[in-house]
Amino acid sequence: MMHCYCVGFVPSLRSSDLSQSPSVSNLGITPQSESFSEWYNDLVVKADMADHSAVRGCMVIKPHGYAIWELMQRALDDMFKDSGHVNAYFPLFVPKSFLSREAAHVEGFAKECAVVTHYRLINDPDGVGVVVDPEAKLEEELIIRPTSETVIWNTYKKWIQSYRDLPILINQWANVVRWEMRTRLFLRTAEFLWQEGHTAHATYGEAEEEALLILDIYRRFAEEWMAVPVLTGVKSENEKFAGADHTYCIEAMVQDRRCVQAGTSHHLGQNFAKAFDVKFQSQEGKEEYVYATSWGVSTRLIGTLIMAHSDDRGLILPPRLAPIQVVFVPIGRDEETRTKTYACADRLADALRHLSWHGSRIRTKVDKRDKESPGFKFNDWELRGACLRVEIGPRDLEAGTCVVVRRDLGEKVTVPLDGFAAHAEAELASMQGALLERARGFRDAHTYRIDNWAEFQALFTGEGSGGFAVAHWDGTAETEEKIAELTKATIRCIPMTPLAPGDDEPGTCVLTGKPSARRVVFAKAY
Amino acid sequence: MMHCYCVGFVPSLRSSDLSQSPSVSNLGITPQSESFSEWYNDLVVKADMADHSAVRGCMVIKPHGYAIWELMQRALDDMFKDSGHVNAYFPLFVPKSFLSREAAHVEGFAKECAVVTHYRLINDPDGVGVVVDPEAKLEEELIIRPTSETVIWNTYKKWIQSYRDLPILINQWANVVRWEMRTRLFLRTAEFLWQEGHTAHATYGEAEEEALLILDIYRRFAEEWMAVPVLTGVKSENEKFAGADHTYCIEAMVQDRRCVQAGTSHHLGQNFAKAFDVKFQSQEGKEEYVYATSWGVSTRLIGTLIMAHSDDRGLILPPRLAPIQVVFVPIGRDEETRTKTYACADRLADALRHLSWHGSRIRTKVDKRDKESPGFKFNDWELRGACLRVEIGPRDLEAGTCVVVRRDLGEKVTVPLDGFAAHAEAELASMQGALLERARGFRDAHTYRIDNWAEFQALFTGEGSGGFAVAHWDGTAETEEKIAELTKATIRCIPMTPLAPGDDEPGTCVLTGKPSARRVVFAKAY
Repeated sequence: MMHCYCVGFVPSLRSSDLSQSPSVSNLGITPQSESFSEWYNDLVVKADMADHSAVRGCMVIKPHGYAIWELMQRALDDMFKDSGHVNAYFPLFVPKSFLSREAAHVEGFAKECAVVTHYRLINDPDGVGVVVDPEAKLEEELIIRPTSETVIWNTYKKWIQSYRDLPILINQWANVVRWEMRTRLFLRTAEFLWQEGHTAHATYGEAEEEALLILDIYRRFAEEWMAVPVLTGVKSENEKFAGADHTYCIEAMVQDRRCVQAGTSHHLGQNFAKAFDVKFQSQEGKEEYVYATSWGVSTRLIGTLIMAHSDDRGLILPPRLAPIQVVFVPIGRDEETRTKTYACADRLADALRHLSWHGSRIRTKVDKRDKESPGFKFNDWELRGACLRVEIGPRDLEAGTCVVVRRDLGEKVTVPLDGFAAHAEAELASMQGALLERARGFRDAHTYRIDNWAEFQALFTGEGSGGFAVAHWDGTAETEEKIAELTKATIRCIPMTPLAPGDDEPGTCVLTGKPSARRVVFAKAY
Repeated sequence: MMHCYCVGFVPSLRSSDLSQSPSVSNLGITPQSESFSEWYNDLVVKADMADHSAVRGCMVIKPHGYAIWELMQRALDDMFKDSGHVNAYFPLFVPKSFLSREAAHVEGFAKECAVVTHYRLINDPDGVGVVVDPEAKLEEELIIRPTSETVIWNTYKKWIQSYRDLPILINQWANVVRWEMRTRLFLRTAEFLWQEGHTAHATYGEAEEEALLILDIYRRFAEEWMAVPVLTGVKSENEKFAGADHTYCIEAMVQDRRCVQAGTSHHLGQNFAKAFDVKFQSQEGKEEYVYATSWGVSTRLIGTLIMAHSDDRGLILPPRLAPIQVVFVPIGRDEETRTKTYACADRLADALRHLSWHGSRIRTKVDKRDKESPGFKFNDWELRGACLRVEIGPRDLEAGTCVVVRRDLGEKVTVPLDGFAAHAEAELASMQGALLERARGFRDAHTYRIDNWAEFQALFTGEGSGGFAVAHWDGTAETEEKIAELTKATIRCIPMTPLAPGDDEPGTCVLTGKPSARRVVFAKAY
């Protein structure tokens, strides 16, 4: 095993991008150590994941970023379907009056939204271009859905009469719009893509079971696919979804020790059924309101994925979600040599494509760009997060070997061509596991049991600080808000199961000293 | 082979739906012979394909309808990717000023659209509910995309500098909004789902090749998956996409002999590149405008599919796009018998699910609803378009057989349990072919070469009339408009290849008698 990490090659950028401030690497990416947030913004753009658009707060998801979303969608969709859910599609528009039907929903949610008031443009009578036709004003304004509970429950009213119509287990893949003021690519944008499940049940117990089933699907997806360990828990009253009875969530720590809420599953009780008058006749002949859940994950998962694993050289992607799992860079100065190394790479790639790993074919690419140097290609594929890079030069061919570099380790390993496919498959599996373990180790190393206010404050205000504070809280909204005001840390969740023995035992609030039923998890959140 | 078509069972409806006018069948569906349009509307709703929503012109796509869309998406997406395309996602919002950049585009398109003017609601100061915050007015109004050429070409400007950045072969799956006044579920709705491809090329020839490649993908998809034969052709200047150099299309005939434009592929020339100033440096170092194509199919395909094949008893779906290909209805009066027939059905279904047909598993369902009669189930699955229905009763079990009914034939066929899987697979293949042949036969029987104005007019104005008129036209927009005014028939396409020998030879216009270069296809269109 050779320890030779390739640096110093031409970076994977157009020369026009190279005039950077001195603190920025030759990849054009600010180092994490300097500014995590700049690092993230630079990486998302340089790695061709997404781009800002002409409309404030809206992003363009570029093909490389969208490919990750497609892999996420496929995996989640399979899990939803395996557990009996079906997909459907509901309208983009919500009549304005729908929003105020559920009192808590409209109070806590969805005031910042895109409002459609007109339905026609006309040629500008005073000049060039088009203007809104003042004659074409809608009687009732339409809101671009910020979430679809209201539209869907208004529809379910038509679909549900009897217990025989229940449960309804529907999911929707859609775009939604929330007029955010401070946006960040993937993590918080005005328009984003997501899935939203909306289920209807005859009993509280069934709805509770559904909410927990989905929470577990989200947890498994985060851990098994994204290689991101998550806490599962309940939100405090302050943080729960407006209109929910209670909200479950998965919460991840990323490399700046902040927390990302990666998915939520709401038990809505009978709140929306009452707001939209959705009753059913029970098996016993009684008329009752329907119980509901809703749950969602969004393109925010892509931001979480990037922040959890990647480094200053580019993306590090868990193999199960990497658009390119194995990239081949065949090398040769002259065409005759290249003919041979290209053929070898094609042969190896073809063998991999016929292997099934976790139920899908191994995703490969043979980089045949003749005009780019090997160094350019190495950097480019590091930036784009190919999991394994396979270099094949004329000397390798003679020796019957190739050189394999795993993205997270960066070490060159010489591998016989004969055993290549098995080696590659084993490395992908090993990398998938290693990323999860590394992220888990990082999170655990930055999770602290804190019983003292000075320590608590120091964790969230000092230089290079941050992490999860597992602390006692007196259970009041006032204390929660006071802590947020003093430290910017909020309660991310009340864990489902104690993170450590004793976490669920009583104590005294870290701020007020009042009695606390159990520890909860505080962190600064995205 | 027994010829016993099951009728007279309890219809697959709630009893509340049964108070119908006498002309409506006990399924609640108006017969085609009485009103094709009522038949279609009834069927779409009764077969759980789609529903009207609270927002005028917007539909809810129900799970059964959405399942067909998912199958269509998967098939098309695979074809796009196999030919080198990738997916991406661009914003929902188009700044108003973008629309007027391309003069023909804004003139011919997209005046009827949803306009966002505000971005916030506030509690109504005068009472309950919410109102639009007058303070939150956008500086520039945003249009909900009716199509994305403008947004995408504004983005491509950032992505394209050199010939090395070309071609760009991007597709997007998205929702779009066109404020249609007269809507019809799937065929014409204010919001619909579609894919829109937007490609960028260095030369006219490459863009032309791309437009034709996609046209052929659309034709193959229509024929091989939808079992709908289509004409491929060019649109007249009147009918082409506003902003295109020329538009290719696929055109289908449905059972009322009207035509549905099922997909379009536009060669946009340099029009959008000029409007958004997208130039590239060619291999020879010259600065040139980029050539473009765009192409799309939408949820309108679902409407086309229904209108092409279905009958008064419900949906008839080509097996490759049927959400349920084989449904099992095990029968038994008592639980002991049912235990046996259910087990047999499960065994057969399981064997089918392990078979791959056209690259995917055979989609099966075992109907175990104890409270419904066999007759109810038979009708229900006919309505919902299961391709093969398999009945298994106690006598069948004793005889080691089952009864198979193919949806398009309606005949009961006794099949040995042993050979069942092979029989089912063969029947699915045979049905897929039979539907295409039937549709082709129907279309050809209603395609007429017409050289006389009286005949032409009679074809489009008489009772039970309609079809494709292959007629000479003098090539002017005036004549085209005059014909449309007199008959409601429009030029659907100028076929790529003559439909019959001689169609591409000169003649005289069917209306004006002026010289015509070749025959074109007229029809009434949806």
